[in-house]
Amino acid sequence: MVKKIAVLTGGGDCPGLNAVIRAIVRTAVYHGIEVIGIRDGFKGAVENDFLSLGLQEVSGILPKGGTILGTSNRDNPFAFTVQKNGQSLQEDRSDQVIKNLENAGAEVLVVIGGDGSLNIALALSKKGLKVVGVPKTIDNDLMATDFTFGFQSAVETAQEALDKLHTTAESHHRVMVLEVMGRYAGWIALYSGIAGGADIILIPEIPYDIEKVAEAVNIRKQNGKKFSIMVVAEGAKPLGGEMVVERTIAGRTDPVKLGGIGAKAAADLERMIGLETRVTVLGHIQRGGSPNTYDRVLATRYGVAAVDAVIGGKFDTMVALKGSEIGCVPLADAVNRLKKVPLGDPVLLMAQKLGINFGQ
Amino acid sequence: MVKKIAVLTGGGDCPGLNAVIRAIVRTAVYHGIEVIGIRDGFKGAVENDFLSLGLQEVSGILPKGGTILGTSNRDNPFAFTVQKNGQSLQEDRSDQVIKNLENAGAEVLVVIGGDGSLNIALALSKKGLKVVGVPKTIDNDLMATDFTFGFQSAVETAQEALDKLHTTAESHHRVMVLEVMGRYAGWIALYSGIAGGADIILIPEIPYDIEKVAEAVNIRKQNGKKFSIMVVAEGAKPLGGEMVVERTIAGRTDPVKLGGIGAKAAADLERMIGLETRVTVLGHIQRGGSPNTYDRVLATRYGVAAVDAVIGGKFDTMVALKGSEIGCVPLADAVNRLKKVPLGDPVLLMAQKLGINFGQ
Amino acid sequence: MVKKIAVLTGGGDCPGLNAVIRAIVRTAVYHGIEVIGIRDGFKGAVENDFLSLGLQEVSGILPKGGTILGTSNRDNPFAFTVQKNGQSLQEDRSDQVIKNLENAGAEVLVVIGGDGSLNIALALSKKGLKVVGVPKTIDNDLMATDFTFGFQSAVETAQEALDKLHTTAESHHRVMVLEVMGRYAGWIALYSGIAGGADIILIPEIPYDIEKVAEAVNIRKQNGKKFSIMVVAEGAKPLGGEMVVERTIAGRTDPVKLGGIGAKAAADLERMIGLETRVTVLGHIQRGGSPNTYDRVLATRYGVAAVDAVIGGKFDTMVALKGSEIGCVPLADAVNRLKKVPLGDPVLLMAQKLGINFGQ
Amino acid sequence: MVKKIAVLTGGGDCPGLNAVIRAIVRTAVYHGIEVIGIRDGFKGAVENDFLSLGLQEVSGILPKGGTILGTSNRDNPFAFTVQKNGQSLQEDRSDQVIKNLENAGAEVLVVIGGDGSLNIALALSKKGLKVVGVPKTIDNDLMATDFTFGFQSAVETAQEALDKLHTTAESHHRVMVLEVMGRYAGWIALYSGIAGGADIILIPEIPYDIEKVAEAVNIRKQNGKKFSIMVVAEGAKPLGGEMVVERTIAGRTDPVKLGGIGAKAAADLERMIGLETRVTVLGHIQRGGSPNTYDRVLATRYGVAAVDAVIGGKFDTMVALKGSEIGCVPLADAVNRLKKVPLGDPVLLMAQKLGINFGQ
Repeated sequence: MVKKIAVLTGGGDCPGLNAVIRAIVRTAVYHGIEVIGIRDGFKGAVENDFLSLGLQEVSGILPKGGTILGTSNRDNPFAFTVQKNGQSLQEDRSDQVIKNLENAGAEVLVVIGGDGSLNIALALSKKGLKVVGVPKTIDNDLMATDFTFGFQSAVETAQEALDKLHTTAESHHRVMVLEVMGRYAGWIALYSGIAGGADIILIPEIPYDIEKVAEAVNIRKQNGKKFSIMVVAEGAKPLGGEMVVERTIAGRTDPVKLGGIGAKAAADLERMIGLETRVTVLGHIQRGGSPNTYDRVLATRYGVAAVDAVIGGKFDTMVALKGSEIGCVPLADAVNRLKKVPLGDPVLLMAQKLGINFGQ
Repeated sequence: MVKKIAVLTGGGDCPGLNAVIRAIVRTAVYHGIEVIGIRDGFKGAVENDFLSLGLQEVSGILPKGGTILGTSNRDNPFAFTVQKNGQSLQEDRSDQVIKNLENAGAEVLVVIGGDGSLNIALALSKKGLKVVGVPKTIDNDLMATDFTFGFQSAVETAQEALDKLHTTAESHHRVMVLEVMGRYAGWIALYSGIAGGADIILIPEIPYDIEKVAEAVNIRKQNGKKFSIMVVAEGAKPLGGEMVVERTIAGRTDPVKLGGIGAKAAADLERMIGLETRVTVLGHIQRGGSPNTYDRVLATRYGVAAVDAVIGGKFDTMVALKGSEIGCVPLADAVNRLKKVPLGDPVLLMAQKLGINFGQ
Repeated sequence: MVKKIAVLTGGGDCPGLNAVIRAIVRTAVYHGIEVIGIRDGFKGAVENDFLSLGLQEVSGILPKGGTILGTSNRDNPFAFTVQKNGQSLQEDRSDQVIKNLENAGAEVLVVIGGDGSLNIALALSKKGLKVVGVPKTIDNDLMATDFTFGFQSAVETAQEALDKLHTTAESHHRVMVLEVMGRYAGWIALYSGIAGGADIILIPEIPYDIEKVAEAVNIRKQNGKKFSIMVVAEGAKPLGGEMVVERTIAGRTDPVKLGGIGAKAAADLERMIGLETRVTVLGHIQRGGSPNTYDRVLATRYGVAAVDAVIGGKFDTMVALKGSEIGCVPLADAVNRLKKVPLGDPVLLMAQKLGINFGQ
Repeated sequence: MVKKIAVLTGGGDCPGLNAVIRAIVRTAVYHGIEVIGIRDGFKGAVENDFLSLGLQEVSGILPKGGTILGTSNRDNPFAFTVQKNGQSLQEDRSDQVIKNLENAGAEVLVVIGGDGSLNIALALSKKGLKVVGVPKTIDNDLMATDFTFGFQSAVETAQEALDKLHTTAESHHRVMVLEVMGRYAGWIALYSGIAGGADIILIPEIPYDIEKVAEAVNIRKQNGKKFSIMVVAEGAKPLGGEMVVERTIAGRTDPVKLGGIGAKAAADLERMIGLETRVTVLGHIQRGGSPNTYDRVLATRYGVAAVDAVIGGKFDTMVALKGSEIGCVPLADAVNRLKKVPLGDPVLLMAQKLGINFGQ
């Protein structure tokens, strides 16, 4: 029987991380298992930055956004950046991670993270560490699980923005464009577009023809609707064109959205129709804030399931939602498998039957 | 090929009704099918109170609570209340409904309603009318479908109330009790309790022992938690006791919550523990307001699926969510089958592992 | 120059208490003043239950409802309840409070509380303790200040409930009644009624004639509006009648709303009109939760102003909002002066011009 | 006694426009005055695009964002753009406006608009038309009134975004920058920054020294706070530098935020500190959506006051909030007077005492 486990959060933050942590701690305590928290993702694992997590530490964090453990986007123990003699080098510190956990008495490492973090977890498992993964991707683009926590909260944030843009669009007879997250998969655009009553949705999976978009706007105009709402996933791309996601400020690549695909599509569209067009890039506010009701339940379930996996000895697995049940899948089968929106997806088909235009 | 359909909403209102209506109209228009709306449920069907529904009529209603068609709780065409010679009589007017629809050219009737309305739809289908049902129960207690629209919105309203009660409970070292909907099934209590961080959840499916509840509160006190949050479904009942849902004002049965089970459980509990206890009865605000993101998508899917069923000739069925797909089930198999929370429900089991007390 | 102050929160909780505490600590630290927090209101002052408050302790509490210090409703150091020989006695422990503060080095006591707590503060000031008061009343019924923090948040909670009831009222052709806080003053009912589009508002300051209310509902019906929304302050009373705020469960006075004035008015109304009437009692959820934007700014201003008063040597005062400025008024002038809604209040007059009925 | 009035909304949309329109219509109807609505601002006034506004037309619009009348940003009847012989010309059509209103029987024109629209109203009044203005500026930058409706809603939207960015900032140890509206005045940045717990606020009225900003971030780091939140008004500018509000896409000036001042400040800051910096530009979502509680009351008061002014014969005025009362000021005194944040503003001073850095 396992006596002590460690937990870390890795990669970009996401609503519900604290709900997972809380569920892990409460369930572990309930079963007499101690929990160690690791600060700032794998960075803390390398640098032995641990803290004890009891009921007190997780009290009141369920509705809190972010992660009380902190996270880091880039620190990989197999290629850990260190400063030596004024130079920045990358070293393999994976043994250090295993040693630190051993010294702390942690028998299992629970990794709450995206594909990058789960790959590291898999690599550590191959060195003998017992690991359990909890999938985290706000884009919902992980093949092995039906839904990931944080996704519905991001969709809600996007939908609320669409509700707001709607009133401006209608009052000013404009096309309002909202660029949302989704570099490789259009899930957020698809769901928020439906929930926010969008007329046009552009996703990476369906390269768009701007003339078809203009046609859809014009048909609405002919039907007396002098405005339109368009949602664009950041990874959308024109037919035969390229994804436009990189941009620079002052000579460097920067996360600031400088004329991404939303701006391009809007500018192209405005040239073709007789309506003003305006763009909003939602950006980081999709990641932050309190998880919504749905995600609080889902994140809590993932946390409980992770401890269940530990107790059941199901190591080197990732917990995953399939239908209404949460089970385990081998980590090796879960990583590196991107879930794009299939052209036969029931929600996509429904949106098309509803008359939403996808740039086709 | 069907040319014209009619649609009505019956029973208590529920967030997402307008989203269903909008999806039906948009999808029908997209396929060249005309839609007639019927006012105030089966009352309008008997009284021939129809209106034409086009894109204009459903524009902007997606986020709106309630139903633009109006609804009525009690009007049954098979036992329709009429006034004759100063007396109130019940007559069978079902033939009138069929005739009215025929005169209007409506080939299929889409009924968006709960078990009562769907039973009427089934009875009409037996008289030869083609019907398609869309399930509506805010309590999520219909066996044939995984989730109904409006449920997640009600859970969200309850969770937001719990968030608010939490801060008072903590500041005042009190037990705060929230009575939520759920006369026969504890789904809203279960989901909102998990999402709102409740310590105790009482549901109709698990008769509660108030001593076990007091014990749970006391264990929290011993662990330094001087407050507790309890969610009580209105249909919860003490072990060996009765449901307490009826109450009277001035000699008549009244929907005002006069000391329902929440108040009883709170009063009983306060006598057993050394903490103040306060009750809030959430009531009608669980039914109203804008559907949340999840319900907007789900309600829209139901609406599209209803038109799909019409086009596919799948009459005398109800659209139903199974896993991630929406399909059709025979109406006869869907009605009169209450879905309670099974003791093996994965979400219930998860809540128990998390340490939430269910009065046991 | 003052070196150290103490702060406590007394009476019922209210959105914005933590924002005041945070502002006090941040401003004090900025000026090199130490802050001691007192737990659970005057109870902690008697029992010497103190903690040190620095930037770390108040980090992240701005949006948090409740009070991190805890509060108590009833503990008065001048009549402090103690257990002696199995009996409950009341003793004057005010000297103990002064001594405890002296021992802790606190030169000034900042009391964030309602009329009860401020009266205690005034009494302590007469014994030589330097005090500064911060007014807290969710009902906004304190004469010396234009607005109190928490009031707008409570109004928002009530308005959101009205928005939800609106859709049900309209769909079901009902009169929906919402009972809100306001035992002696109708501010919450007045403001939330206007913001929530109520047709009728009943407040303690204007005894209502139920026949006039019924008339207003009937005029709406004649104009094609088959529903009405009514807000009732818990202290409203019928013309010539009594306030109905006490109620009992199982032989004891209880906070559970058992047929308060909202239920009475609804039942009376239903008998006079041909529409179903439903009541919701909002209760404690008006007190809890995150302060809204307006209250976060106002509460922060009060906290800064309290430290300003300390630095400026303005003791035995209460900070108060007058127009757009926050200044100080003598505590002696501020307590025991209830601010009811005057019949010439500009917002009340405006509501009457708008056609809202006040039961007249 | 006036029998009929006309009303239009001009300029950019703003939460609360519909609440003003509703209040005007309800109050007018209550006093037996007819109301004509003009579509799309002054464009409809020139083109005689009128509709009748009764209780039915304004039912349910209180919580709705935008304006049911439509608006236009640029149409000025004194320089109205017309197409002649394939050319775009500007003609004076102000006489047409007066004639159209006369023909419709409207004796007074109520203009709900910003400085541009109110200037047109003033010019029309000089030609003999009776006008009453209702101030609309989401930036709150009109000298003659304490607060304008829509401002608090925009502040709330910005604050909610700050709440979300906060959790990301804390989890990732980043500086998160939010660019908000406010080209000439920093009111939105000031209020939302306080309500959202910002550490740094940059406003147009205080040119910022980026080194002082970096210093503030570094002091926080030394105190153990590895993250900071900065709000930047779009009109903020560096000491000795220029405002950066214009940007181009594909050779044309475009509303898309292409590296505005938020991006510049963030990029400059990141170079000076050892923390990642991220920017979000909130944009149009500040304008849209349902007015919040405060704005619903304020907008309603403005609408009632406008009809009061009509009835009282106070023409060529603008309704304005002063303290807690709404009165009238001469239009001529109200226009062209920008209200910037004065350096002695009580809220600004309070923010400085709280330790918020303003780039100084």
